[in-house]
Amino acid sequence: MDDCIFCKIIEGDIPSRKVYEDEDVIAILDISQVTKGHTLVISKEHVRNILDYSDDLAARVFSKVPKIARAVKAFDPECKGLNVLMNNEEIASQSVFHSHIHLLPRYDESDGFGLKWETHTDDYSDDELDQIMQSIKKELD
Amino acid sequence: MDDCIFCKIIEGDIPSRKVYEDEDVIAILDISQVTKGHTLVISKEHVRNILDYSDDLAARVFSKVPKIARAVKAFDPECKGLNVLMNNEEIASQSVFHSHIHLLPRYDESDGFGLKWETHTDDYSDDELDQIMQSIKKELD
Repeated sequence: MDDCIFCKIIEGDIPSRKVYEDEDVIAILDISQVTKGHTLVISKEHVRNILDYSDDLAARVFSKVPKIARAVKAFDPECKGLNVLMNNEEIASQSVFHSHIHLLPRYDESDGFGLKWETHTDDYSDDELDQIMQSIKKELD
Repeated sequence: MDDCIFCKIIEGDIPSRKVYEDEDVIAILDISQVTKGHTLVISKEHVRNILDYSDDLAARVFSKVPKIARAVKAFDPECKGLNVLMNNEEIASQSVFHSHIHLLPRYDESDGFGLKWETHTDDYSDDELDQIMQSIKKELD
């Protein structure tokens, strides 16, 4: 798409630091470097986010993630793990509306990434949880 | 595996609220309900995390994620988007060492999930970024 920064990066019209490319994806360093080595896996097909993926596109794009994740984990001996994150829609912190997967290598508790993770285990009754389950199942029928 | 809680859930030896099942994955409500409708997509194959995935396993497991994500987005009209998150190794907040993908529906800024996201755009020189890129590329050769 003409006004899409990631389409321009894929076309080579905007420079990037590319670590991997094949027929389905490119992987580049994220300019924000939230953690050292922070990498984006970007689908070559212009698709907004996971909500617009076909099954086949998900298979093709995500089949490349394990090897790229292993490289992003291995490049620095201090790296102890990584988060894989996809933000879908603005409320979920998506800022570029061309599908991309963040690979965030993790070093220690004080590196640049972390999670707000409030548990609500006891906020719902069994009936309420059953209702949530049924509502999601219904969408999958 | 005998001592794995997710293997026991897959086998039906531990109850769960299941929203989807096929030959490759099950999807269940996460007991913590970080946000309302918080769902886990769990590979039936016992594999530790993304670092241990084959390309083929990633294709099979992730090809199921878009339709489950659409259902988790659609079940509640208040939901405006969702985060897809995979925590790999303890430093990245993995607590059960059987691969699982969090689907976190998002409602507003004050729901149960959020990101610590420190940008470090200006902390590296061009040479340092080139070095990071080369080190990751080398791991992919």
